[in-house]
Amino acid sequence: MRLFLVEGGRIVDRKDGPGIGQLTSSPIAALRQALVSWLPREFRHVALCGMAGSRNGVVEVPYADCPAGAPDWIAHAIEVIVDGVAVTIAPGLAGEGLWGAPDVMRGEETQIFGAIDHEPSLAKGRHLLILPGTHSKWAMIEDGAVTRFQTFVTGELFALLSEQSTLTRTGGGDDDRANGFMAGLDHRDCGLTGAMFAARSRQLREGRTRGWAMGFLSGLLIGREIDDAVAALDDVAGLTLIGDPALTALYRRALQTRNLGANDLDGDTCSIAGLSRLAASRCYEGSTC
Amino acid sequence: MRLFLVEGGRIVDRKDGPGIGQLTSSPIAALRQALVSWLPREFRHVALCGMAGSRNGVVEVPYADCPAGAPDWIAHAIEVIVDGVAVTIAPGLAGEGLWGAPDVMRGEETQIFGAIDHEPSLAKGRHLLILPGTHSKWAMIEDGAVTRFQTFVTGELFALLSEQSTLTRTGGGDDDRANGFMAGLDHRDCGLTGAMFAARSRQLREGRTRGWAMGFLSGLLIGREIDDAVAALDDVAGLTLIGDPALTALYRRALQTRNLGANDLDGDTCSIAGLSRLAASRCYEGSTC
Repeated sequence: MRLFLVEGGRIVDRKDGPGIGQLTSSPIAALRQALVSWLPREFRHVALCGMAGSRNGVVEVPYADCPAGAPDWIAHAIEVIVDGVAVTIAPGLAGEGLWGAPDVMRGEETQIFGAIDHEPSLAKGRHLLILPGTHSKWAMIEDGAVTRFQTFVTGELFALLSEQSTLTRTGGGDDDRANGFMAGLDHRDCGLTGAMFAARSRQLREGRTRGWAMGFLSGLLIGREIDDAVAALDDVAGLTLIGDPALTALYRRALQTRNLGANDLDGDTCSIAGLSRLAASRCYEGSTC
Repeated sequence: MRLFLVEGGRIVDRKDGPGIGQLTSSPIAALRQALVSWLPREFRHVALCGMAGSRNGVVEVPYADCPAGAPDWIAHAIEVIVDGVAVTIAPGLAGEGLWGAPDVMRGEETQIFGAIDHEPSLAKGRHLLILPGTHSKWAMIEDGAVTRFQTFVTGELFALLSEQSTLTRTGGGDDDRANGFMAGLDHRDCGLTGAMFAARSRQLREGRTRGWAMGFLSGLLIGREIDDAVAALDDVAGLTLIGDPALTALYRRALQTRNLGANDLDGDTCSIAGLSRLAASRCYEGSTC
């Protein structure tokens, strides 16, 4: 959970809490509790995106189907009244992935429509946006509409492998992560589930550290995501990375090893721009919009 | 931990316990406790393989380097005396994987040398053995020596994804696993970490069950292991599967979808044949060999 208090277009406070899978109360109770601490302010708009609109969220908001521009997306939003406050919850998007399977996103579409507002050059023509994270998304936008996207489970897989697998459990220090990352990026054109084992075998046989192995797995997974996406796309000109700056920096370095450049946009800035756009599109009884 | 009590060439009892990572006592204490329950028998030979010879095992037994035949392997074994009983611990093998990374095995080499004893046709010429499991191994043997092998983390990855990821957590029943398995095998020529997400998106968008998603991930990972190994090998004639019959059956079905056939050998039978060979090669003071 990430909540931003915005006054006059500026963030004046934020609250960060557990994700929806880690909540000990209901999502609506968690939201109430977070909002109460900001009283006695009067909220003009409260807008949420991401898992708040999932089946286990505050209220299930059906996906908008691709191709979807901001007006389609806004039209699919749902309002609920929580303690007398109108709360707008964004829909996610549904579409077809790069290899024909159905695909879904919740939250990234808000960053995408926020990015288009924030960076007007994205509103016309064809662009490719990369949103790294637990479930990394590659989204194609054409004249401001999301036409196609593909999820990669890069972040979730990295967390499982680095925290819970035997691949990083051999021991040794946490240093040398940057060298491991570059070695993982270099490990191309090979079976991925075979290559992963080198994180362990290079510790056992070449004295690599646990930190090196973590970096290696990160580089291997990010490199593979990029190579698989690029192989499936006709054209990868005009890349834009959206996300946490520490994470987009890793992707930018990985793209460089493939001779690809990318612009960078901050993920929180894009989220707030998208939520502001959603909030501004709604007028409630008694509000002054 | 798997221990077999063999008398006159027949298994008369077995003990199954936790793996070395789950032990609450030291490996040697766990071994002592298991052996005590079989007293007052006099053990002629006790032979162990696998993680018992790892750094965290009973005693670290250095790897034998490939190419390695049974005599090389036996020469690298180490004996320790536990409560007056001579215990022979097998070395693992070290070699180079299919994509040039160092690779290691501990335990599978015992099954391989046992298989060669059990199935004399494997002792001459070139054969490819597949040993599915947590860390699945593809091993090439030439005239009875292991020349090259590659690990795939198929089993460990499947356990992490099916038990601890968001990919199978959407809900629904445990049925329809067989259909999911076939769908996963069919999902070829696409980015693996992208394709994995279909386990989740097909639950959300097409009403697939959790069981289907588990089967899908299993088929996807096994299919990918086979495709990656086959692509890296010149010749895949003469395949033999060694392992638990329930697991080798899945691999045999997966191989069929790639028009490949394989012989089957039971994993425990091969382990016991390999350990018996190791034990028979050793004479201890006071033993009657």
